[in-house]
Amino acid sequence: MRVNIPETSRKRIVIIGGGFGGLNLIKQLRNSEFQVVLVDRQNYHAFQPLLYQVATAGLEPGSIAYPFRKILSDYTEVYFRMAEVTHVDTSNKKIETSIGTMNYDYLVMATGATSNFFGNQSIESIAMRMKTIAEALDIRSLMLQNLERATLSSDLKEREMLMSTIIVGGGPTGVELAGALAELKKDILPKDYPDLDIRSMDIHLVEANERLLKEMSEESSEHALESLKKMNVDVWLNTRVMDYDGASITTSDGRKLSGGMLIWAAGVKAQVVEGIASEKLAGGRVKVNAFNQVEGLEDVYAIGDCAAFITAEDPRGLPMLAQPAMQQGVHLAKNLIRAQQGKEMIPFHYKNLGTMATIGRNKAVTELGKVKLKGWFAWITWLFVHVYQLIGFRNKIVVIVNWAQNYFRHSRDLRLIIRPFQRPRG
Amino acid sequence: MRVNIPETSRKRIVIIGGGFGGLNLIKQLRNSEFQVVLVDRQNYHAFQPLLYQVATAGLEPGSIAYPFRKILSDYTEVYFRMAEVTHVDTSNKKIETSIGTMNYDYLVMATGATSNFFGNQSIESIAMRMKTIAEALDIRSLMLQNLERATLSSDLKEREMLMSTIIVGGGPTGVELAGALAELKKDILPKDYPDLDIRSMDIHLVEANERLLKEMSEESSEHALESLKKMNVDVWLNTRVMDYDGASITTSDGRKLSGGMLIWAAGVKAQVVEGIASEKLAGGRVKVNAFNQVEGLEDVYAIGDCAAFITAEDPRGLPMLAQPAMQQGVHLAKNLIRAQQGKEMIPFHYKNLGTMATIGRNKAVTELGKVKLKGWFAWITWLFVHVYQLIGFRNKIVVIVNWAQNYFRHSRDLRLIIRPFQRPRG
Repeated sequence: MRVNIPETSRKRIVIIGGGFGGLNLIKQLRNSEFQVVLVDRQNYHAFQPLLYQVATAGLEPGSIAYPFRKILSDYTEVYFRMAEVTHVDTSNKKIETSIGTMNYDYLVMATGATSNFFGNQSIESIAMRMKTIAEALDIRSLMLQNLERATLSSDLKEREMLMSTIIVGGGPTGVELAGALAELKKDILPKDYPDLDIRSMDIHLVEANERLLKEMSEESSEHALESLKKMNVDVWLNTRVMDYDGASITTSDGRKLSGGMLIWAAGVKAQVVEGIASEKLAGGRVKVNAFNQVEGLEDVYAIGDCAAFITAEDPRGLPMLAQPAMQQGVHLAKNLIRAQQGKEMIPFHYKNLGTMATIGRNKAVTELGKVKLKGWFAWITWLFVHVYQLIGFRNKIVVIVNWAQNYFRHSRDLRLIIRPFQRPRG
Repeated sequence: MRVNIPETSRKRIVIIGGGFGGLNLIKQLRNSEFQVVLVDRQNYHAFQPLLYQVATAGLEPGSIAYPFRKILSDYTEVYFRMAEVTHVDTSNKKIETSIGTMNYDYLVMATGATSNFFGNQSIESIAMRMKTIAEALDIRSLMLQNLERATLSSDLKEREMLMSTIIVGGGPTGVELAGALAELKKDILPKDYPDLDIRSMDIHLVEANERLLKEMSEESSEHALESLKKMNVDVWLNTRVMDYDGASITTSDGRKLSGGMLIWAAGVKAQVVEGIASEKLAGGRVKVNAFNQVEGLEDVYAIGDCAAFITAEDPRGLPMLAQPAMQQGVHLAKNLIRAQQGKEMIPFHYKNLGTMATIGRNKAVTELGKVKLKGWFAWITWLFVHVYQLIGFRNKIVVIVNWAQNYFRHSRDLRLIIRPFQRPRG
């Protein structure tokens, strides 16, 4: 069955995915001569960099989400369809989705990335992920459920296990999560659970590399490590997780670390729609040329995490971060409009505007070109950049109110178990 | 297994339920000589009067919820346990719960009410309820899912069915819901769904009585009816719902009304814990005396919706609203403290402070004693009273920000399907 989309004489661009790449692309196509269809599994854009604050009860999910239809409401000939894309048929220029088939003149894959467990199925089946808002809420629920369970136990070892968390992966997500949990442990939980000895709650951060934040300078890595240690996070470098039984992990050096929740922040892999031939992939990502075009497929493009845009500097493709996706989205829109006007496409060049990670209260590391900041000033920069990038005036204000409350009152008021997390039965 | 609660020489009060009654009781017991244990299924207090705004994308769930542990964090000898109470054994002074048994010296039932389908099982199995935050979120999701489905249909009848909603019950909840949906229909949805003819979306409000808001004066009822009609709500008075097949209802006068969602706001019944003998009940509620004591059970009390406090004015018990519960909670705390001090208990008297319902933008009806307000002034009163009663400074601010945005920008930004609603399989 064909998906119901109004007929028009315009050429149709179908965009799969409304993350940073897809959204920036569609914004630039606002007044174009195309018909544009955005397809996404969710009906909202989620601001992924702040998922960790939803998981740690600092922000409400609605503050970092924005409905697609609201964004697109004053665009002409732009349609949204909520669906899962199951197959791409590039030879017939159509896609198959959970709601029917759709033809395209141009296809843009902006499907992002998903958690990568590097083949470890036992961990995959039990680890908590944090790629979607629902997953972040599951982490929030499980953390609180485990604390409630801990109050019921009179076995000290079991209590410690239930209170403790293991975070795998020392990139920005892992560092930010560990810092936020350390602040919960210090400021909030002792008051909330007077009958638990919160000091015996452990926060383990496990990183296979020799340093944290390996995308940043050694100086920033060192600062993050020192800060987390001061906040009583146990950081394990050069360490991999071999196994997790729901109560403890076994590390590559044979150690056992106890924790009732394991959060996987160790790696991502591109999400590629079925139907793209494997010879078009590099490291699991879709190989694209200088115009973000999938090689050998004239009217198919890929941007963001799912695309392998290979340069001398980045032989495995651009970093899987918001920035390259956003820049590619904006650039591709211009190229599609140029192509329609009979002009030549312009090659894409990625401009690294900087990287940053927050660690906690007044603590962050920020690298903007050659300017490296740390501590309070880096933290303020991080705050401004994130509020600025959030979509929606209401969201900005609500996030500022929450952050002010969290900062001045040492408070995290969203410790709510709205839907208890239940492990799927294996 | 006995639930792990620290041993003490204090007498233990167990409170079942942290709604308006239980919460006000526990606040007054803050510095008492008792050990107090609050048992609730949720780990937060939900502000039920604003559930309808969560259901209609006007407020985030976190804005009307407040974690119990935060409220209790600076109380001494007050414990919270998240559990479902399954049985009361009054002869042995203990309760059975999902996490084990618990002894009590005094037991207070503040278990509230649940939806009452008056025995209509076919409707019960398919209707949406709105007594919890999770249920309000389910309504929000299903409404948006139905609209997404409507865009896919080329059958006009099916489109209209998917867009339309049937609300059963013309009390404050039904009126408020109908008004909020009417505003969504007018201000938001036509922009969100340019390819749907939103004018053919129907909002039906079905009431078995001859007037809306029957707890209020005829003048207020009339005003609510006129306002809703102007907002294009179809109000059906003297009408009962006989059946619903997921697409349309059959009414008591044989009419068919089409709607893809049926929200049940028609009645509530007390939630009574198993183990209370049926001769202690009146109309499904637990009969209590002038001290809110369950008749014949010396150390067992009941307050709020679950209690039948019978007076000449209210022969079926006090109205099932927040106010009686709050007053009973405060009063019972005083009596329990008096009893401990060897003083006599004081009989409870309910003081009706007024009733109110909002209908929409600048529209409400408020009755405070003999003062009857309607329109803008009633609406402002409603706003102030509700913000004032919300627990938590952050919640008050966030609600004000959201309301300001909703008011000045005619906006409802929380049109998010975070967890799609799936009907339980029958």
